[in-house]
Amino acid sequence: MSEERAFNFSAGPAVMPLPVLKKIQEELLCLPGCGASILEISHRSKQFGEILARTKQNVKDLLGVPDNYQIMFLQGGALTHFAMLPMNLLRSTGKSGNYLVTGNWSKKSASEAKTQGKVDVVWDGKAEGYVRKPTDDEIKLTDDALYCYFCANETIEGIQYPREPKVDVPLICDASSEIFSRPVDIEKYGVLFACAQKNAGPAGVVLVIMRDDFVEMSGDDLPSMFSYKKLAEKDSMLNTPPTFGIYSMALVTDWLKEQGGLEAMAALNREKASLLYDAIDGSNGFYRVHGQKEYRSVMNVSFRTPSEELDKEFQEEAKKVGLTNLNGHRSVKGERASIYNAMPREGVVALRDFMVDFAQKKG
Amino acid sequence: MSEERAFNFSAGPAVMPLPVLKKIQEELLCLPGCGASILEISHRSKQFGEILARTKQNVKDLLGVPDNYQIMFLQGGALTHFAMLPMNLLRSTGKSGNYLVTGNWSKKSASEAKTQGKVDVVWDGKAEGYVRKPTDDEIKLTDDALYCYFCANETIEGIQYPREPKVDVPLICDASSEIFSRPVDIEKYGVLFACAQKNAGPAGVVLVIMRDDFVEMSGDDLPSMFSYKKLAEKDSMLNTPPTFGIYSMALVTDWLKEQGGLEAMAALNREKASLLYDAIDGSNGFYRVHGQKEYRSVMNVSFRTPSEELDKEFQEEAKKVGLTNLNGHRSVKGERASIYNAMPREGVVALRDFMVDFAQKKG
Repeated sequence: MSEERAFNFSAGPAVMPLPVLKKIQEELLCLPGCGASILEISHRSKQFGEILARTKQNVKDLLGVPDNYQIMFLQGGALTHFAMLPMNLLRSTGKSGNYLVTGNWSKKSASEAKTQGKVDVVWDGKAEGYVRKPTDDEIKLTDDALYCYFCANETIEGIQYPREPKVDVPLICDASSEIFSRPVDIEKYGVLFACAQKNAGPAGVVLVIMRDDFVEMSGDDLPSMFSYKKLAEKDSMLNTPPTFGIYSMALVTDWLKEQGGLEAMAALNREKASLLYDAIDGSNGFYRVHGQKEYRSVMNVSFRTPSEELDKEFQEEAKKVGLTNLNGHRSVKGERASIYNAMPREGVVALRDFMVDFAQKKG
Repeated sequence: MSEERAFNFSAGPAVMPLPVLKKIQEELLCLPGCGASILEISHRSKQFGEILARTKQNVKDLLGVPDNYQIMFLQGGALTHFAMLPMNLLRSTGKSGNYLVTGNWSKKSASEAKTQGKVDVVWDGKAEGYVRKPTDDEIKLTDDALYCYFCANETIEGIQYPREPKVDVPLICDASSEIFSRPVDIEKYGVLFACAQKNAGPAGVVLVIMRDDFVEMSGDDLPSMFSYKKLAEKDSMLNTPPTFGIYSMALVTDWLKEQGGLEAMAALNREKASLLYDAIDGSNGFYRVHGQKEYRSVMNVSFRTPSEELDKEFQEEAKKVGLTNLNGHRSVKGERASIYNAMPREGVVALRDFMVDFAQKKG
């Protein structure tokens, strides 16, 4: 390594586990038994087949996915699936997609869905500034609801559902920024999907977990690559899948199992988040959090100092001591510390110490 | 490197330049100036912005792309664009896509296009067994043709256009398996596209070069990720692009420039192909080529021995001496040696020598 690695708080693409990066590096010229790089082998090869099967099994084990769900590794980022889901589910059934809009990502998803079918936004946090999630009592579904869509964690606003909404129809969840960070009760879901580049691997692969009856809803008129049914039938190999992304996800999920699985990750993630939120709450108002307390995200700690000048200074000083990419999203401003699974506890401690110091000096 | 690298004749994902793999390996834990891996940095970062700009400039330089064309780095493999192209071009204009069907890939593209608009297959080589491309005289376009679609090189059948078809409408070309292998006269094209995993990088990124008036044809009703217009407006960054694939393509195109560009590659590729075809033609009929002589592919040498038993033996013996993945596609059988840009001349010489020996022993 010719250079020092920083503690990288990027919201995504984001930090990956160092042992995973080292393994990728070690095998990059020659994957064992292949005589070639993972970048160079056919998706139809025996070796890649084993990698695909292992990744699926890891996902199944970690999330407790029942047998009546398909596990797919697709492309296009979450944004593609914002449109593909209603294209497959609403067009053929004529039913409504019910959406809970709690920030930038769920708003965008509802907007893409409207190009494909009937969409009802049944709760919208915009007037309050996207500072919280709805309570179960506030959610009134339409009679023709096929699913209730929600974004588990809004990365930009830094707000997260403490648990999934309780409704009478299957849930569809964009779990992009919290997948594998805590256990999930998959049986409540029709679809759970996540782009990889936050908690599951590099950009370029999207994990889609879909209940069989949802898979079957795809209309026969869809192009092959836009049909979950056809993609599931070919086990994500209708054409060349993003082989490197899947290989990386195999290594990330191997690592998660070694760490003790999702219960262990959830405990560590809660502790990491508490370190920062406690520092914020103990700063006598120097730092303020964007979201309401009970909806604070365990993954993305979004906060600000008393002024934009101090925000700028905070980020510049932090960078000098190896704490990078702490800038908030341009729509919310301030700071954002993304502390996904792969962010080590010592990175969070270093940031916490820096925050306490900075508040003492500037407060 | 714990293991010996073989000469890998895989049709795709396929061999990459060794200096490129070594650079990826060297930078994998820490991209210079980032304190993080290319897998971990934001697509909005200054460093990634520079990589994207460099890749575009390299593509522009290598292929001589004029200013009135957009260069995009998208996802979903060629198969996604088989449907997306007519979705963007035929739906809004009501015109016809004219297709030249010369093998598996162009056939599949016409079939996907039919889900989106009017498609006319104006030449089909099926009856002859896909052994050649049409001559210019044989191509009769329809009056409402918006474009003439062709697949420059059919990997499975191993047949290639000596030059692009001469027609009165803009061409759309699937150049997946020959991009960067020879110069192209882009001004004849409305669209030239190629998945990366043969000649341009790893699986997971698709290069799309599209003339401005074609970009403008996208209907406003399309979901964002399915609209070339919206993708072009955001410079391939409507959402997180496949950052690692683009970085790899930057390195591959850097390498191509170092090799002397596409004229130099074309000369080397012709010479490499001649080594194999000369051995085949000099084998007294032991080896036979699938395609007709003037359409033989410079990229994929598709041939067979006198029997399926000998084919099997050929592949097994070759593997023992480090010549791997020589099996033909399941639909054509026999052998296929894919000798893309990154296959070194010595790999081709080693295969040629093996072929001569094998024919002498078994012929």
